Amino acid sequence: MAVTLQPAAFAKSAEKTRSTASPSPDTLQRVEQWGLFELALHGPASGNPFQDVTFSAAFTHEHRTVEVKGFYDGDGVYKVRFMPDMQGPWSCVTASSSKELNGHSTRFDCTAPSPENHGPVTTAHRYHFLHADRTPYFPFGTTTYAYFFTGDAHAADSLAGMKGAFNKTRACVLPKPLGQGAQILPFPNTGAAADSRGGTNDYARFNPAYFQLLEKRIVELQSAGIEADCILFHPYDAWGYKAMPSEVDDFYLRYVVARLAAYRNVWWSIANEYDLVKSKTTADWDRFFRIVQAEDPYSHLRSIHHSAVIYDHSKPWCTHASLQSYDFEKSAERRAAWNKPIIYDEIQYEGDVERRWGNLSAEEMTRRFWLAAVRGVYATHGEVFIADENGPHAHEPSWSDAGRLRGESASRIHFLHDLVAAHTQVGLNEYEGSYYLCSGTPNELYLWYFDYHRPARYEFPLPNTANFEATLIDPYAMTQTKLDGMFSGKSRVALPNRPYQAILFRKISDVIGKPTGKAPTPEVQD
Amino acid sequence: MAVTLQPAAFAKSAEKTRSTASPSPDTLQRVEQWGLFELALHGPASGNPFQDVTFSAAFTHEHRTVEVKGFYDGDGVYKVRFMPDMQGPWSCVTASSSKELNGHSTRFDCTAPSPENHGPVTTAHRYHFLHADRTPYFPFGTTTYAYFFTGDAHAADSLAGMKGAFNKTRACVLPKPLGQGAQILPFPNTGAAADSRGGTNDYARFNPAYFQLLEKRIVELQSAGIEADCILFHPYDAWGYKAMPSEVDDFYLRYVVARLAAYRNVWWSIANEYDLVKSKTTADWDRFFRIVQAEDPYSHLRSIHHSAVIYDHSKPWCTHASLQSYDFEKSAERRAAWNKPIIYDEIQYEGDVERRWGNLSAEEMTRRFWLAAVRGVYATHGEVFIADENGPHAHEPSWSDAGRLRGESASRIHFLHDLVAAHTQVGLNEYEGSYYLCSGTPNELYLWYFDYHRPARYEFPLPNTANFEATLIDPYAMTQTKLDGMFSGKSRVALPNRPYQAILFRKISDVIGKPTGKAPTPEVQD
Repeated sequence: MAVTLQPAAFAKSAEKTRSTASPSPDTLQRVEQWGLFELALHGPASGNPFQDVTFSAAFTHEHRTVEVKGFYDGDGVYKVRFMPDMQGPWSCVTASSSKELNGHSTRFDCTAPSPENHGPVTTAHRYHFLHADRTPYFPFGTTTYAYFFTGDAHAADSLAGMKGAFNKTRACVLPKPLGQGAQILPFPNTGAAADSRGGTNDYARFNPAYFQLLEKRIVELQSAGIEADCILFHPYDAWGYKAMPSEVDDFYLRYVVARLAAYRNVWWSIANEYDLVKSKTTADWDRFFRIVQAEDPYSHLRSIHHSAVIYDHSKPWCTHASLQSYDFEKSAERRAAWNKPIIYDEIQYEGDVERRWGNLSAEEMTRRFWLAAVRGVYATHGEVFIADENGPHAHEPSWSDAGRLRGESASRIHFLHDLVAAHTQVGLNEYEGSYYLCSGTPNELYLWYFDYHRPARYEFPLPNTANFEATLIDPYAMTQTKLDGMFSGKSRVALPNRPYQAILFRKISDVIGKPTGKAPTPEVQD
Repeated sequence: MAVTLQPAAFAKSAEKTRSTASPSPDTLQRVEQWGLFELALHGPASGNPFQDVTFSAAFTHEHRTVEVKGFYDGDGVYKVRFMPDMQGPWSCVTASSSKELNGHSTRFDCTAPSPENHGPVTTAHRYHFLHADRTPYFPFGTTTYAYFFTGDAHAADSLAGMKGAFNKTRACVLPKPLGQGAQILPFPNTGAAADSRGGTNDYARFNPAYFQLLEKRIVELQSAGIEADCILFHPYDAWGYKAMPSEVDDFYLRYVVARLAAYRNVWWSIANEYDLVKSKTTADWDRFFRIVQAEDPYSHLRSIHHSAVIYDHSKPWCTHASLQSYDFEKSAERRAAWNKPIIYDEIQYEGDVERRWGNLSAEEMTRRFWLAAVRGVYATHGEVFIADENGPHAHEPSWSDAGRLRGESASRIHFLHDLVAAHTQVGLNEYEGSYYLCSGTPNELYLWYFDYHRPARYEFPLPNTANFEATLIDPYAMTQTKLDGMFSGKSRVALPNRPYQAILFRKISDVIGKPTGKAPTPEVQD
């Protein structure tokens, strides 16, 4: 379990720290590896603490020291958060422009992580992902834009839908107008309309309660094993946040990173549909990437999501591509060009709304996830249904803001996740040039997906150096049917005469007495 | 009914012609407009009549004379065929290098066409087709490569499947190996293997019986209202026909055109998968087009079908594009570039074979026909199923050679044909920029096809200058459901929450008292 203390408790703990320079071993605070250590101190409350006071801490383990920025959390409380990445003793000393906050020191013991804590996710194996403890991580995420700032009931519905189905969600740090009266905002705002839109923002200050709510939600996600892909800017604005002065953009980014970076499940999405934010230039987006990169001591994943114009994902601060498209046939080319993992973060939505991006059937959504997986890339779910205006859920937000899950694809997506996780530690990679779409690991694993094709039989070009077992998979029915016998070399297998079927071959033994040469990849024919 | 006499009868009628220079009015031969007039004369049978003797006839109606090449049909019989395009009296006089055949004259009366005879098909309305009598023609064809030279039983199966379902078929003039023992060949051949393959061809002569069979099949198609898209070259060869000397290619082309051009339902497809015939160059294909264009007095439709490399369809001798692809989204661009109708003549096959081009579901085939139709282009059906090796139809050829129709898409394709024919005299044209795929005629007709989208409702941007009736269409279930009421201007309509649905709006009256301005085309949104 992550150590996440409430502000009041932190303030007290900080008080204690000041009075106890050298805590005794039995009272030494314990923080698990990749958990969150927080030091809270009382300091100046007058003037504008958000801008007037600097506050940071240096965390030291053995020969290594990490400098971490703190932040003002309102009510005279200053906090600094840290995610230790090594087990053992850590010490900490604060630095501040305020005498009250400067030179405090404490120590804590970093303990082994709890079973569900695998550390933050990073890129790995060139095109894939991995937790810090080297547990495989395959992103099968969804989209809940308003999850951070919506009301508790909708957030609870959202979380219930995500639990056990998805392991990542995309959510906006800045609010979207919810159309449901007053809503909590990140900056002090005066004169907003009854629906909370508009008003005048005080960009010199933040509303700590807004970010405290957001942090609560991030912890909820963390407890459910869900990565929080935090969208830092977006065009769906009712208050001017998409066109703040540059110095406010940067001030906001530094504040958010100081608050959130120590949560291990945070990813940074610089923007959603960045190219629809007309007030900013490519130089702005590049600068935001560099600020986040410089301010985040843990190098959480960084991406940017487009609408029509794809960002140049080869830029060094971009850890992976976050695309809005479903042209998976371009994946091999893109992976090679960018040399990074690719997540197709918006592949249209399951649902029934009038817009053409929002009315996929569950079958089509499932198909797109399979096409992505077999191409060696990842996809992200989204859902938008028309509210039942006369039913019990009238005026409910749609899932992709936050709310109830209504579609039928989530369980199919989860089924695919578990299939991938059961058969690879690395991730799937497409066999380029395969006659039908195929991915896996040469000599070990071959997963064919037939898409709209429905051959009644197929001669699978397996290597003759190993014996394989074969499992027919119906991706939508979520069935797996193991075939009798073993398969080696070219193997003709009868297939169900239906579209959208798959078959998986898994090595069970080596063939004895045959030369083990280079494994043939599925041949190019026709 | 077309006048189509058997060879024996023709020879006799020719005898009569020689003895009756001026037939009396009551014995004057009658040929319906776009029917086939044939004059058969006895001439030299020694030497090589195919090459040694020239034979032609000049057909005159009022001020116009058409020169038509004849051909040697074996057994000392020379024939010239003519398709009169004007009603009234025609006269004819022969010319030949042989005294026996030179200077014969006769007359015939061209009568009104019978009800099912609409004349040959030409291009019209820039992107569409039309019969010579201006009856609309919308090509909804299939593929029966071996139909011309297969045995009668398979041809009868084929014809039974085509009747009432398709109005065009693509068939090869040169044979494909059928793998069923001896088969009839177009050139005298000695030393062929037991399976009829190989051997030595005598390229100085033809086998008239081969072409007589082919003509019988063309007439069968004509009687069933089916256009014969005659493929002149192809790469599926077992005798050397794909690599004949250039002068043989030309000799063959002139012979085929002299024999077949007078059949009104003939189209010329210069080649199937021309780019797989490695022995020929673009210059060869261009020459073949020009020969066919020069030799055919009626300018039947001319196209060429590719495998991977699209021919330059802007060349003037090419009447329309015959594509192998299903990238219908490029149709608008291609129509504009070539300024000609487009038929996607191979969009993969319904079936269950191992090759990826041959295992579409009937649903996917139906979908592709709709995508083509709504894009303002045409598609062609094909079908390949694995033979039931133990069943009553073992070793039967697959439909796309010739044989039984087994798939489920043909009736859906016919349903679409009838829908198009019921609502337009011209053909469908896509509204470019429409938010969902839509085609029709501004102010008159709007046909939306939703493909994989399934909005529960949609606000259709109809013009407010007319009242429309609306019909929901399920393309696969083949149902049409008329909605209550009239629609005008922006009209929100509830839709079935299923993919692959369509809706048609048809004008039933003008709106009185409103200004009738320019009809809005469906707007671009989102």
